Amino acid sequence: SETKKLLVLPGDGIGPEVMREVAKVVQWLQAARGLKLDIAEELVGGASLAKHGVPIRDEVIALAKEADAVLFGSVGDPAWAHVGFDRRPEVAILRLRSELELFANLRPAKVFDALIDASTLKPDVVRGLDIMIVRETVGGIYFGEPRGIETLPDGSRRGVNTEVYTTGEIERVARVAFDLARVRRNRVTSIEKCNVMESGLLWKEVVTDLRQRVYPDVELTHMLADNCAMQLVRNPLQFDVLVTGNLFGDLLSDLAAMLTGSLGMLPSATLGAEQADGKRHALYEPIHGSAPDIAGKGIANPLAQILSFAMLLRYSFDREADAVLIETAVSNVLASGLRTADIMSEGMARVGTSVMGDAVVKEL
Amino acid sequence: SETKKLLVLPGDGIGPEVMREVAKVVQWLQAARGLKLDIAEELVGGASLAKHGVPIRDEVIALAKEADAVLFGSVGDPAWAHVGFDRRPEVAILRLRSELELFANLRPAKVFDALIDASTLKPDVVRGLDIMIVRETVGGIYFGEPRGIETLPDGSRRGVNTEVYTTGEIERVARVAFDLARVRRNRVTSIEKCNVMESGLLWKEVVTDLRQRVYPDVELTHMLADNCAMQLVRNPLQFDVLVTGNLFGDLLSDLAAMLTGSLGMLPSATLGAEQADGKRHALYEPIHGSAPDIAGKGIANPLAQILSFAMLLRYSFDREADAVLIETAVSNVLASGLRTADIMSEGMARVGTSVMGDAVVKEL
Ligand SMILES: CC(C)[C@H](C(=O)O)[C@@H](O)C(=O)O
Ligand SMILES: CC(C)[C@H](C(=O)O)[C@@H](O)C(=O)O
Repeated sequence: SETKKLLVLPGDGIGPEVMREVAKVVQWLQAARGLKLDIAEELVGGASLAKHGVPIRDEVIALAKEADAVLFGSVGDPAWAHVGFDRRPEVAILRLRSELELFANLRPAKVFDALIDASTLKPDVVRGLDIMIVRETVGGIYFGEPRGIETLPDGSRRGVNTEVYTTGEIERVARVAFDLARVRRNRVTSIEKCNVMESGLLWKEVVTDLRQRVYPDVELTHMLADNCAMQLVRNPLQFDVLVTGNLFGDLLSDLAAMLTGSLGMLPSATLGAEQADGKRHALYEPIHGSAPDIAGKGIANPLAQILSFAMLLRYSFDREADAVLIETAVSNVLASGLRTADIMSEGMARVGTSVMGDAVVKEL
Repeated sequence: SETKKLLVLPGDGIGPEVMREVAKVVQWLQAARGLKLDIAEELVGGASLAKHGVPIRDEVIALAKEADAVLFGSVGDPAWAHVGFDRRPEVAILRLRSELELFANLRPAKVFDALIDASTLKPDVVRGLDIMIVRETVGGIYFGEPRGIETLPDGSRRGVNTEVYTTGEIERVARVAFDLARVRRNRVTSIEKCNVMESGLLWKEVVTDLRQRVYPDVELTHMLADNCAMQLVRNPLQFDVLVTGNLFGDLLSDLAAMLTGSLGMLPSATLGAEQADGKRHALYEPIHGSAPDIAGKGIANPLAQILSFAMLLRYSFDREADAVLIETAVSNVLASGLRTADIMSEGMARVGTSVMGDAVVKEL
């Protein structure tokens, strides 16, 4: 098999320490499974600010465009709040999404049976939960113009952001959701706030129309975002695939992930459009953030980062067998009773980041 | 005591049927407690559309301005989706909030001990929960201009909404939150998305500055909206008062209410600024919506509407004793084991809307 280009961007907070555990898995696959990688590693977020004074350099964006896939850690260290809005750590991930046009963020919320006790919800409410949230990630209020803070004549100030969605932007992300539903349980719930926002009204119309034209076989339900926040707590098992805009997707996917009790376990993929040559840009990252409160303590859960790499092998490198190997190793480690602090429950053995990573490699 | 002007607006969906139970409580207070009310009742939402072709008439807005308080039911019957965005039922509540400048929506999320089993969360996670969400309700993306759907030269369309917050709008709602915290547990959590939105950055700055100048005795924490959605599920007991904008408040307050398992029990108040004469406009409504799926079936829980009226008596009519009477009656009814479907749990007696209302009056 040909050598693939992988760009590794650990970021700040717990990013670097969980990425170190992925490196162990990579080494094993190179030695034992003939994986051939051309790996570049670069600083982003707080780490890049410390060295280069910017959250991400143009060279790194260029490398990401050339890579076959990007493995991202996390950014958001609040220690960099003082550098100003244009240079904050988060600009790294926002520019990557935008400049590689990674418009569809796939965020699974899945309950691992072995971890069901870690959920704050009653076991019967979440047992077997398997939701896929498809979040639009290059449009909406994250990128709309005009935006900014202006000073008014009387000295007071005004903050402005603009939510914008075009029919094309809505349709392409909805297609991803419908396609996923077809290989899952054939149900899509589309989320907006059409009773208050015209952009939500357009969202609803475009999704309805697309289903009628192209996906009449998929069941489609519309739900208001506030009701969805409620329904995720009331009865999350009612959902299969959810599709929504950038901002609602941000809140609802974090909420859904937390229902599982296994936040530290959940990977995500962000995909671009298919190019003429059949390739598509793709970035893989854990659902969890940079968790600055526990950074550097060696207690973060590396499994979401490791499982993000498994997803990358499957979808971008076409190495299904290796992905399954990793996922099985993770399952076995959990079955053996090892737990990091975030998924700890009674009777289990608490371990740190590095011991957890070693345990996965040992199971491989 | 003087006669007070009350405007009653049942709305659509389950609004009218739960409001009927409040009427029983009002009659009892008039007969037994010398309550003197000048009551007007008007149609809003779907009910007004059916009779008058508009979601709310200007006369009703005028009546609301003259009233000492407004008791609102709910609006949002999707049967009226075809009338177009400008005439949808929701315009009723949005115009009331906007034209009476009801900028601070107080949304408690409180666990009733007797109902703890109705929550989908584990009892230990929500026992004793008592959160107050202060949501801004006349600004943000709900009302910002420009807004609408435009057709582009190539025939595709673009939906636009604008989030706007001024320093003045942020400060006045933050004051309400800090004042409430002082008579509660002295903690405010301010919620925005300052890592993505400049309007959120301004929000954070204004709240920080206000605390430093006026409320140094109150503990202030800042939290990103996505993290807050997570934290509400992970450990809701960490919160006391939350303050946030219109859109985040919409999602997060519904989420918080659902945690309690007692959505059908939760009242809310929306307050305007204090006028020169010491009065302030105020509207009281349940947290739950118009629930069109169960409307007309006689099974809706009337307690949130009845408790909204108790709040109204306390804050707008200065009748603390009557408010306590009603709240105690509700507690006693729950203790006696009566439950509507939404709060039903094992071993309790399931009753309908009207029987529940009668039971409250009997306890008075
Ligand atoms: C880091 C931040 C900009 C980002 C977002 O808001 O999209 C994060 O919360 C996420 O969900 O990936
Ligand atoms: C009915 C609707 C316009 C309203 C809102 O979004 O504010 C409702 O959801 C609420 O929370 O009071």
